Amino acid sequence: MVNSYLLQSSSAITIKNAYIESEISRPSIPVSFSSQIPRFSLRIMKSSKQVEACKAKAVMKPTSQFDELIELDISLSPSVNAVKPSKTMAISDKSTALVQAGIPRYLSNSLSYEHTHLSTCNYFCLYDCVEYIYAGINAIREGHTRYTPNAGTLELRLAICHKLKEENGISCTPDEIVVSNGAKQSSLQAVLAVCSPGDEVIIPAPYYVSYPEMARLANANPVILPTNMSDNFLLDPELLKSKLNEKSRLLILCSPSNPTGSVYPRKLLEEIAVIVKKHPRLLVLSDEIYEHIIYSPATHTSIASLPGMWERTLTVNGFSKAFAMTGWRLGYIAAPKHFASACNKLQSQLTSGASSISQKAGVAALGLGYAGGEAGAIMVKAFRERRDYLIKSFGELDRVKISELQGAFYLFLDFSSYYGTEVEGFGLIKDSESLCQYLLDQAQVALVPGDAFGDDTCIRISYAASLSMLEAAVERIKKVLLSFSKTALTNV
Amino acid sequence: MVNSYLLQSSSAITIKNAYIESEISRPSIPVSFSSQIPRFSLRIMKSSKQVEACKAKAVMKPTSQFDELIELDISLSPSVNAVKPSKTMAISDKSTALVQAGIPRYLSNSLSYEHTHLSTCNYFCLYDCVEYIYAGINAIREGHTRYTPNAGTLELRLAICHKLKEENGISCTPDEIVVSNGAKQSSLQAVLAVCSPGDEVIIPAPYYVSYPEMARLANANPVILPTNMSDNFLLDPELLKSKLNEKSRLLILCSPSNPTGSVYPRKLLEEIAVIVKKHPRLLVLSDEIYEHIIYSPATHTSIASLPGMWERTLTVNGFSKAFAMTGWRLGYIAAPKHFASACNKLQSQLTSGASSISQKAGVAALGLGYAGGEAGAIMVKAFRERRDYLIKSFGELDRVKISELQGAFYLFLDFSSYYGTEVEGFGLIKDSESLCQYLLDQAQVALVPGDAFGDDTCIRISYAASLSMLEAAVERIKKVLLSFSKTALTNV
Repeated sequence: MVNSYLLQSSSAITIKNAYIESEISRPSIPVSFSSQIPRFSLRIMKSSKQVEACKAKAVMKPTSQFDELIELDISLSPSVNAVKPSKTMAISDKSTALVQAGIPRYLSNSLSYEHTHLSTCNYFCLYDCVEYIYAGINAIREGHTRYTPNAGTLELRLAICHKLKEENGISCTPDEIVVSNGAKQSSLQAVLAVCSPGDEVIIPAPYYVSYPEMARLANANPVILPTNMSDNFLLDPELLKSKLNEKSRLLILCSPSNPTGSVYPRKLLEEIAVIVKKHPRLLVLSDEIYEHIIYSPATHTSIASLPGMWERTLTVNGFSKAFAMTGWRLGYIAAPKHFASACNKLQSQLTSGASSISQKAGVAALGLGYAGGEAGAIMVKAFRERRDYLIKSFGELDRVKISELQGAFYLFLDFSSYYGTEVEGFGLIKDSESLCQYLLDQAQVALVPGDAFGDDTCIRISYAASLSMLEAAVERIKKVLLSFSKTALTNV
Repeated sequence: MVNSYLLQSSSAITIKNAYIESEISRPSIPVSFSSQIPRFSLRIMKSSKQVEACKAKAVMKPTSQFDELIELDISLSPSVNAVKPSKTMAISDKSTALVQAGIPRYLSNSLSYEHTHLSTCNYFCLYDCVEYIYAGINAIREGHTRYTPNAGTLELRLAICHKLKEENGISCTPDEIVVSNGAKQSSLQAVLAVCSPGDEVIIPAPYYVSYPEMARLANANPVILPTNMSDNFLLDPELLKSKLNEKSRLLILCSPSNPTGSVYPRKLLEEIAVIVKKHPRLLVLSDEIYEHIIYSPATHTSIASLPGMWERTLTVNGFSKAFAMTGWRLGYIAAPKHFASACNKLQSQLTSGASSISQKAGVAALGLGYAGGEAGAIMVKAFRERRDYLIKSFGELDRVKISELQGAFYLFLDFSSYYGTEVEGFGLIKDSESLCQYLLDQAQVALVPGDAFGDDTCIRISYAASLSMLEAAVERIKKVLLSFSKTALTNV
């Protein structure tokens, strides 16, 4: 680590009052600790000599009239240490930094993250479907800028109930809806509400990066059930059945899936429902955020609409994907009242309600009609074109394996045949992370290692990007992969 | 409980598949469980006979071709059960329901909650300071409606650094700032980040309702340190000193204070800082959300700006109070990088970043100048008038005790001389909660029981309301309190 110094692996550091008092200008001298201990920017230090003193004993010698020594424990909570940061967000942040350093945005920031490729305005304005944009603007103009009820405005919750009935076959009341700052918060609150320490949270892999961390935050144990590309990454009901026990509390399903693009057919969901209903403690968290980004003939089924499943399902959805409203931060949960109330209570202590402005826009978005109406259909058509283009393009690479993609806007491709290669000036491409790092370095394209989703053989490519952007990115990826095969020194 | 039935105190309920399948219209028959178990709306039941069957055994008899019995465990996580819902939010939600039932808004919803009395538009537009309103509208128009970096846009974090340096004497860098969906989230993430199970979180009472719950969510123990109205509800340094031990991890200070309106003088903060610095494990969470709502000659001091305190302080602030932006949901934390990074990591799994629209507005708000510029000064003047009016009005009641109010927009009045009175048709006024309930019933004015803030002798009155609204509310409160003294059957 450049310019950093390893302190003794104690989390207590002792520094001299005098230095803390003195106002010393940046840049700081970063000092890192080992393993779990985060970096601590010791901006109070003046010289490398002082840093050396710190390095040796983490104790500064008194040099002024202040002679008391100040110790400081900078350790973090063990449960927070156990939580991994979101890898998709980390890569997005990293590629944003690249953009700030002058790397063209279209190559560095577009293929790694869960945003729809154009912003709300660009996407929906083009098609004259600006109702919710005006609703947001009017909310500000008309002063809808106060706290809303914690669970969301009644107006929005009623609109969500209407949507769930019309589009999903789910009947519920506004007190069974809790609106949050996005589907991520809705999911986390659900996991925290129903899981007790030691409970098992069943997560089919590949999975959305945050699910295992949510389980850990609830002091529950994530139980990862692998799936196969040959089964289109769908959960095998027999495997599920074999893994259930009295500790099994929550099965997390995500359909259409981030990261695989798979869609659970109704028949498979029915089979899973039969198994779930035999286990009195087992509930389902159904993440349906990509519901409307689905390619016919595939269709979306809400597991909560199946017989006997409403009572044991917490359905998560939101506005980021269906309406290209990522920056508005708006999601919700629909669940039986006792679960919804618990989520509401948690939210009252976590964040309070979501943005009043976004909620007004959300009502208007749901007013666009089934699946976002015409604008939604145009958006899905655009995604379909991009999917078809990418499948064709990557299909030309013999060493890449592709599954059937029926929804969301991700490709989850098996690149493992490239692993095990030593590249001059870079080192061993040993896994999805090193291959992504290599592609970021060489092609300036940010992709997410499959490892983050529980499948190291694959890499996730988001096609929520313009076609021209995708074409440029694919060309660069292909160029690197082809030259890579040629220039690789050894294939270990 | 009207229309409710008590089931056996098991959290497992058994219901018949056949009923779940049938689509039965509302209204539902609510069935409640004992103690910790939340209400479960058994909307699948048709008749009272079926409910009786359920009541007896929580098992429905098979009546159709489906003969398998379905059990369902609806218990919640113990840590979530341990968390109390936010009482201020609960009362706000209740008074919103009253409004929906036809009770005039100005009497039911205004005096209980932490919103500034007028919305963003009403407040700031009046004074031609509409920069951030336009910034919000332009953010939508110009397509700033995508995910931002998890910690907030660099633009906003730079603006916050500038504000902290200019207004608070705190020097920090953008990577020491994490922007969240409000100061509540910022505070919770800080508590979760630094507290390990069994740690002690020192909270002077009266306290903001969420602090003890935040400690509980971190599996830490809230240690409540009482203060006295005669000391203007300020923490006694000697008491603090006597309660510290090796488990003490976090001292939460809120100045200006919600609920008391007290402001910590610089000298007292310096005394506290000296004590804090002697304890290597002790950090400070400084909630400064009411910073700018302060009445001269009182002035605000950020404890992080005191010698040696930046390293051990997590400073929370936001836009809701200073800029009347409650519905925008925007707050932040400033803390040494290792703590900020931990908060950032937590946020990446809790909610991701705050609204992109609100962040653009936040930049513009900070551009208004010191303490919100002219508009901020006008707002504080308006609050001061309301404070003076209320102190005069309640000062006329001999039985009410009042402390010195120097900031925020709350009165925290001692009404305990009214406790112990039996009122016909209502029952015993035994505490702050029953007095508030009585005032809500009789005067249609929603106040928050001091009990929620850790001081049952008092009641909190928010004066973030128009003067005419306050006049009407005070008249009604006084009328009830005076007639109450006369009509009370007995004073036990």
